[in-house]
Amino acid sequence: MKEKVRMGMVGGGKKAFIGAVHRMAASLDGLIELSCGALSSDPANAIASGKELFLPEDRIYTSYKEMIIAESKLPQSERMHFVSIVTPNNLHFEPAMLALENGFHVLIDKPITFSLAEAKILKQKATETGLMVCLTHTYSGYPMVKQAKQMVADGKLGKIRKVVVEYPQGWLSLPADADNKQAAWRADPSKSGISGCMADVGTHAAHLAEYISGLQITKICADLNIVVENRLLDDDGNVLLKFNNGANGVLFASQIAAGEENAIKIYVYGEKGGLEWHQMEPNTLTVKWLDQPMQIYRTGNGYNSEIAKYNTRTPSGHPEGYLEAFANIYKNFAQTIMAKQIGEEPSAAMLDFPNADDGIRGMAFIENVVASSKSDQKWFDFKV
Amino acid sequence: MKEKVRMGMVGGGKKAFIGAVHRMAASLDGLIELSCGALSSDPANAIASGKELFLPEDRIYTSYKEMIIAESKLPQSERMHFVSIVTPNNLHFEPAMLALENGFHVLIDKPITFSLAEAKILKQKATETGLMVCLTHTYSGYPMVKQAKQMVADGKLGKIRKVVVEYPQGWLSLPADADNKQAAWRADPSKSGISGCMADVGTHAAHLAEYISGLQITKICADLNIVVENRLLDDDGNVLLKFNNGANGVLFASQIAAGEENAIKIYVYGEKGGLEWHQMEPNTLTVKWLDQPMQIYRTGNGYNSEIAKYNTRTPSGHPEGYLEAFANIYKNFAQTIMAKQIGEEPSAAMLDFPNADDGIRGMAFIENVVASSKSDQKWFDFKV
Amino acid sequence: MKEKVRMGMVGGGKKAFIGAVHRMAASLDGLIELSCGALSSDPANAIASGKELFLPEDRIYTSYKEMIIAESKLPQSERMHFVSIVTPNNLHFEPAMLALENGFHVLIDKPITFSLAEAKILKQKATETGLMVCLTHTYSGYPMVKQAKQMVADGKLGKIRKVVVEYPQGWLSLPADADNKQAAWRADPSKSGISGCMADVGTHAAHLAEYISGLQITKICADLNIVVENRLLDDDGNVLLKFNNGANGVLFASQIAAGEENAIKIYVYGEKGGLEWHQMEPNTLTVKWLDQPMQIYRTGNGYNSEIAKYNTRTPSGHPEGYLEAFANIYKNFAQTIMAKQIGEEPSAAMLDFPNADDGIRGMAFIENVVASSKSDQKWFDFKV
Amino acid sequence: MKEKVRMGMVGGGKKAFIGAVHRMAASLDGLIELSCGALSSDPANAIASGKELFLPEDRIYTSYKEMIIAESKLPQSERMHFVSIVTPNNLHFEPAMLALENGFHVLIDKPITFSLAEAKILKQKATETGLMVCLTHTYSGYPMVKQAKQMVADGKLGKIRKVVVEYPQGWLSLPADADNKQAAWRADPSKSGISGCMADVGTHAAHLAEYISGLQITKICADLNIVVENRLLDDDGNVLLKFNNGANGVLFASQIAAGEENAIKIYVYGEKGGLEWHQMEPNTLTVKWLDQPMQIYRTGNGYNSEIAKYNTRTPSGHPEGYLEAFANIYKNFAQTIMAKQIGEEPSAAMLDFPNADDGIRGMAFIENVVASSKSDQKWFDFKV
Repeated sequence: MKEKVRMGMVGGGKKAFIGAVHRMAASLDGLIELSCGALSSDPANAIASGKELFLPEDRIYTSYKEMIIAESKLPQSERMHFVSIVTPNNLHFEPAMLALENGFHVLIDKPITFSLAEAKILKQKATETGLMVCLTHTYSGYPMVKQAKQMVADGKLGKIRKVVVEYPQGWLSLPADADNKQAAWRADPSKSGISGCMADVGTHAAHLAEYISGLQITKICADLNIVVENRLLDDDGNVLLKFNNGANGVLFASQIAAGEENAIKIYVYGEKGGLEWHQMEPNTLTVKWLDQPMQIYRTGNGYNSEIAKYNTRTPSGHPEGYLEAFANIYKNFAQTIMAKQIGEEPSAAMLDFPNADDGIRGMAFIENVVASSKSDQKWFDFKV
Repeated sequence: MKEKVRMGMVGGGKKAFIGAVHRMAASLDGLIELSCGALSSDPANAIASGKELFLPEDRIYTSYKEMIIAESKLPQSERMHFVSIVTPNNLHFEPAMLALENGFHVLIDKPITFSLAEAKILKQKATETGLMVCLTHTYSGYPMVKQAKQMVADGKLGKIRKVVVEYPQGWLSLPADADNKQAAWRADPSKSGISGCMADVGTHAAHLAEYISGLQITKICADLNIVVENRLLDDDGNVLLKFNNGANGVLFASQIAAGEENAIKIYVYGEKGGLEWHQMEPNTLTVKWLDQPMQIYRTGNGYNSEIAKYNTRTPSGHPEGYLEAFANIYKNFAQTIMAKQIGEEPSAAMLDFPNADDGIRGMAFIENVVASSKSDQKWFDFKV
Repeated sequence: MKEKVRMGMVGGGKKAFIGAVHRMAASLDGLIELSCGALSSDPANAIASGKELFLPEDRIYTSYKEMIIAESKLPQSERMHFVSIVTPNNLHFEPAMLALENGFHVLIDKPITFSLAEAKILKQKATETGLMVCLTHTYSGYPMVKQAKQMVADGKLGKIRKVVVEYPQGWLSLPADADNKQAAWRADPSKSGISGCMADVGTHAAHLAEYISGLQITKICADLNIVVENRLLDDDGNVLLKFNNGANGVLFASQIAAGEENAIKIYVYGEKGGLEWHQMEPNTLTVKWLDQPMQIYRTGNGYNSEIAKYNTRTPSGHPEGYLEAFANIYKNFAQTIMAKQIGEEPSAAMLDFPNADDGIRGMAFIENVVASSKSDQKWFDFKV
Repeated sequence: MKEKVRMGMVGGGKKAFIGAVHRMAASLDGLIELSCGALSSDPANAIASGKELFLPEDRIYTSYKEMIIAESKLPQSERMHFVSIVTPNNLHFEPAMLALENGFHVLIDKPITFSLAEAKILKQKATETGLMVCLTHTYSGYPMVKQAKQMVADGKLGKIRKVVVEYPQGWLSLPADADNKQAAWRADPSKSGISGCMADVGTHAAHLAEYISGLQITKICADLNIVVENRLLDDDGNVLLKFNNGANGVLFASQIAAGEENAIKIYVYGEKGGLEWHQMEPNTLTVKWLDQPMQIYRTGNGYNSEIAKYNTRTPSGHPEGYLEAFANIYKNFAQTIMAKQIGEEPSAAMLDFPNADDGIRGMAFIENVVASSKSDQKWFDFKV
């Protein structure tokens, strides 16, 4: 019998921005239930946060270890199906490994781990256990991104020649405010890893470029910058790209682009046409042709591809946003879990969520751009 | 003790568009639980729909009467707190009255009832019982609409002189497709009432104009049209407006504006400046000044008013959409219910949802525009 | 032999805004030479203005009468071909009549005359003399407006059902500044005529609606307003429209729409699709379809109609503006004069400029909206 | 006495795109007269083109040498004041040198010469003769570009940290059409020089970046590409930048960005805010702040800087375009010539046109990006 998918959350207590986003995304479609949580490493906060979220008291845990072990002992009809890990980067790997080892699927906020090596081990563990790892590269969850990917895959633009992806933000333009919890851990190498801006947002840009184009980055030339004095990690960077089909590209990401909100956008050019998508107006996909008027594809219309429609909730003109894109990842992941629960084969549409392989490429992106940036040599092979 | 707010739904079975929207809006914030439902007047569909939504079998009802009576007999800690009514217009009044009579708050999709007379009775019943009626005029739920309202209320634009509100849609450009359930009931006077387009979308436009401007329509001159042959109700209409402070205005609504999606937009002009908001790009509010550069207010920024922030879930640049606006109505309504449950006074921000008074003005709008349209006289007093 | 077309200007001395615009428009294509002028009713200003424009001293006149008589005595190879009249509305008719009587074509800034009666006499005189009258309804000079007109004429949108045309400006939001020469005469009934805003900008809106749609307004219901205290003429107005094919519409114009620049825009909806054009981004024409992605037509592309291309000077992406649209009227008028000079039949493209008939409809628009606005009756026949 | 400035044109005969643009730009303001021309190297075309432009027969020349020598013998009150050179790149230097040697100012379409060496000699000659060289980097002629430059110079954005300039075009996406005269010479190294795309449009982008930011490029890392098979010159390229104040940047230019028109745009970020300008909507300048709503500056408003207003012809909302920007260069150059003619010192506003120094930096840009692109080393010093 079909049942709601039960989620246990690691991290995401009070004041944690991304945890709340994950919960809203998980709730939206009525397919997933927040069943338990280890919401903070501070026990008092963990308990208070759990109560605020109406969790039953016996399923409010004060550590991820406690939660995973306790849940694994519950009857199958009660225990959680998957763990959602929304902690800082340095705290992804261990709970994810433990969850897999105890039979739970895992969903992780990006970047997948602290290092590429960890990511590979995690992938290996998932393969061994037959369990799934889902990664929240949110921007690939938008219907118009899926429409773009499909149009490229269908050859509408011809062979891809150039990909430009830009991700300017301005929120770290000033030295970090001590009160800003979000800014604080991202700027701390012991929590964030070897990169700041490129890990936090550059990985989204790289994933989006590969997701839509269907190509892989093979060479890079990176210039990472620390613009605000006394920062320890890059807060800005520009990267020249080469793709596996010979296409060239540019990626830049910045957190010191003063006045920008969250302006990730992408341009893909092929032999026959180009396309343009801006996350801040996500329901519009502009498609440009060599000799015909531009076309504006919009979310929710009948002319869109099946995969775009599958990831759409409202009729055209009723805008979908960031939470809906995020929810598409949760929904597809949950539907895959449900299908497996009842012994069915998940469809290709259900399986369309970022996974451990995407996580590995993301960690490789971080390690490669950092290494390239330090090198005097122009082109640097993208190694995984 | 705080507990999740429990919702029972009337209507909204399989294939019903707006029911699913209501459920997503109700789920988003984790404050409301779908506890029971009478999801269709067809018992088989009611049961199948309830199962699909993971409702417990004993709380899947086959009629709203059954649901209201049965729920009223459950212990207070289990029974629903409010009824959400998402049926066609002719089926709003009776379940709403029965719910109020049995001690349940009510949330209704707009327009509130089939006639102005019904709306007044409903309001009277709510007043008698001390229960609340909430109405889903979704567009007033957007953060930037609330920002606009606040700026007008704060006198930023000076005295308001002109309000233009436009609501073009194109989805009824062709004679209704027999398969289109949405189109079918809206075109049927026995289900929709005395108006088609003006009831369905014109009421949203009128509400938005009054909500942002803080004014009331006092005179109208309406021209309603049946553009597609053989329709029984208006599918288009234009209305000249006068407001209670002497401002003039224009409202038009159309469902035969071919190629338009759901393009409700509003322009408000005062002595000192003007503002412009387009629902299809809802996170942007353009504010224009007599002698300074235009300003673009965007959802999620620190410079916004408290009421805008209260209704925002994501940081700037992470677009919110239609479902989030819809969810703001549910969230505020639920928070008001919660506050009352624990004996607290709900805040002004919690109480900021459309209510029975808005419903009465909406029904008056419908009746007045239909009467004005039939009249040869230019100006027609807006009577409530 | 082909020669440049020689222009004599009436009005347009120093500080006159529109005179300078006319001269730039006339100069742009190198087809027209400013040969003489009676640039001000103040002789000293007329002479100083003529010198500043490098006019030969003997062709700087101090009154239009002097100019027309003197020029008519020059040899045909020297004398001006046409008179450009850029004075306030009350000073259009007499110089225009005198010019026609003395064998000169006439170009007049809109509205064509002070009253409908004058316009009819002027048309009659033009017919008698076989001379041409050109009227500068600038907005019909834009390439994308011509593209829109052609697409409607070709039936691309099917039968037209609705036309909405809006012309908000904000520059008269405050009581007129004594220094503002432009504002001063427009607010003075002895110079402007029976209407302010509707004469000044409403006529442009009405012309644009009829030009693109190919329809004629047959009934109106007007609400003209004096918003700023102590004004003598309307500074704002809203009009319901009916067209000769049964289509309905809305026109509004305002000069108290605080913060608006010159935001004339139009929406035309037919059975099969709709189109949208905004003058402030004039190189973009949005075309919307029932079941296909929107299309964006842009100036300068090969896919545009011949008439759009004929009125385009630069390749796509090199934006054309207001002066180029204005210059298209001058260019087409000049080419028609040139063709007639050498005994050739002007092409349809050359003849595509507003003429005395458009002027008559413009004056009728003014008189009808003023009369309708005073009437208590809803619908008012548009009489010419 | 003030007189119109007389221009002689080299190149620009029938079918030459840019020659016509130069003539329209020169004509617009009524300050410059086309007095003579050597419009084609084909004598028959030169003569036919001259007649079409209404040139007197004795001033239609069949070679630039003939023109310069003949004009230098005319009385000062008749002979041309400057030569406008609108030939392919390989034909700029010789006529420019001859003009300077014979006492004529020179205006040249960009890039200034065929090589950096030539540019330096030309500059030297101008210095020796005291004559001026003007270069048509059109995009710096737009009012909103001047507004941007002024705001940066005034410190409104704080210290500049990042500059991104992008120039995608799509018109060379296909192998060049044999009929396309524009495409043909640009693809021919003997006419265009060592670079295609970077010389043709990359130089505009580099100039715009330095013009607005007030900075100079000091290091580059270039990746030039030949995307369409069998081309001899780059049709696409991406460049990482460092500026003399430590700011970083990205420049890309492409002529194979399928479906793009002429989409040059720039983003400049400083400590306090950022700005964004798109040439295709040139009357809008977006200014973004750390903690205030974005502002939209628009051409023609009173709040703009003096230099922006000085370069504006129409009131706000009456869009200016490419030809007006181009005309600003001609107008400022002509006013400088006029001032010098009557012995006055030209104002800073008059002198605000690109000159030989800009030409030298443009040629250096070309030579440096080509060299950098061939190098394996990441950073390459920008040498002039």
